Amino acid sequence: MKVAIMLYDGITALDAIGPYEVFATVEGIQVEFVAKKKGLIKLDSKMGYLHADLSFSEVPSADILIVPGCRPPNFKAPMNDEDTLQWMQRIHETTKWTTSVCNGSLILSAAGLLKGAKATSHWGSFDILNSLGAIPTEERVVRQGKMVTAAGVSSGIDMALQLVAWEWGEDISQSVQLLLEYDPMPPFDAGSPQKAPAPMVEQVKVMLKELAKQEPHL
Amino acid sequence: MKVAIMLYDGITALDAIGPYEVFATVEGIQVEFVAKKKGLIKLDSKMGYLHADLSFSEVPSADILIVPGCRPPNFKAPMNDEDTLQWMQRIHETTKWTTSVCNGSLILSAAGLLKGAKATSHWGSFDILNSLGAIPTEERVVRQGKMVTAAGVSSGIDMALQLVAWEWGEDISQSVQLLLEYDPMPPFDAGSPQKAPAPMVEQVKVMLKELAKQEPHL
Repeated sequence: MKVAIMLYDGITALDAIGPYEVFATVEGIQVEFVAKKKGLIKLDSKMGYLHADLSFSEVPSADILIVPGCRPPNFKAPMNDEDTLQWMQRIHETTKWTTSVCNGSLILSAAGLLKGAKATSHWGSFDILNSLGAIPTEERVVRQGKMVTAAGVSSGIDMALQLVAWEWGEDISQSVQLLLEYDPMPPFDAGSPQKAPAPMVEQVKVMLKELAKQEPHL
Repeated sequence: MKVAIMLYDGITALDAIGPYEVFATVEGIQVEFVAKKKGLIKLDSKMGYLHADLSFSEVPSADILIVPGCRPPNFKAPMNDEDTLQWMQRIHETTKWTTSVCNGSLILSAAGLLKGAKATSHWGSFDILNSLGAIPTEERVVRQGKMVTAAGVSSGIDMALQLVAWEWGEDISQSVQLLLEYDPMPPFDAGSPQKAPAPMVEQVKVMLKELAKQEPHL
């Protein structure tokens, strides 16, 4: 089976590498990093790169498509790029699962793939997700039909383990979890807006909203 | 402050990108990807690349050094490379924290930086860690003086959040956790040898030991 991870300039590295690492650990899965133009892909931090080994034209199909997210407002570039939207639509016709991490769900929405569907995103992007016609749903991993969306950044690891369990079985998923020693122990319990201190949530929300208003400059 | 992440061919991507994402989310931290030779760095899966923006000779110091791990036997190449060991030793003299993820601690040990120190590694590498003179310690994140070692692969996220809390304060660490929506919900509880089914642990252990005996071919 083939997993295609769509890259674009301004992406969040962990959104892509979390699921990559899970799928790459399963024997026999082929993972491909794909972008409109192959080569180095700038990260949102502007402090490094990922690498697309293949261009859209070289990847006509995939069993699983993953669309990672990014810091706002970087999602606007792929959301407004006709080639990117058309490639996602074409690939989607061939997939068994079409997925996103973080605000990658906004990009799937822009391609018309989440209309009327329950979906999640980074918690700070629910308003935009709603305005694009999806039904924002507060869960770590949301499945509707073959669309699977994950919450912010790190949630792609949980989503990928879930997909491995559905597709390859619970044993395989557990052995991947064991190999990656994914026994998370964050030093704090502040990973969701329900758990973090309210003033901090408000401050981050305002910051993300302000960023989302800007134009991407990559 | 500057965080240097050491890359090498055959590396595990998530070992590097987990901590990267945490540090890159803190305002004002400069993260640098460094390798013996800059350019594309092959991943252990042979299905993609990271990118080193700087070579050893361009990075004479760092506040935090991170040495990521890899699938066995890939650690043998950096452990036997004199330039790599000497660079780590030189950088270590300038750091406030010298750290590793997964069996990156074997590479730190080869550089003589964990002699007699409590340290951790991937759970499958404790024998090798012990044979190199460190004191294997079953914790997610182990701190001895300025040496901080993390357990397997995904633990680098927890370690980086812990370091951010020590160095920049708990508020900053919590806001990074919130931004990355790091509220982990793995579908299973099989992420450590204590929690996974015993026959699965045994099987993975044997596989890792067999791999560790081989010579790296990258």
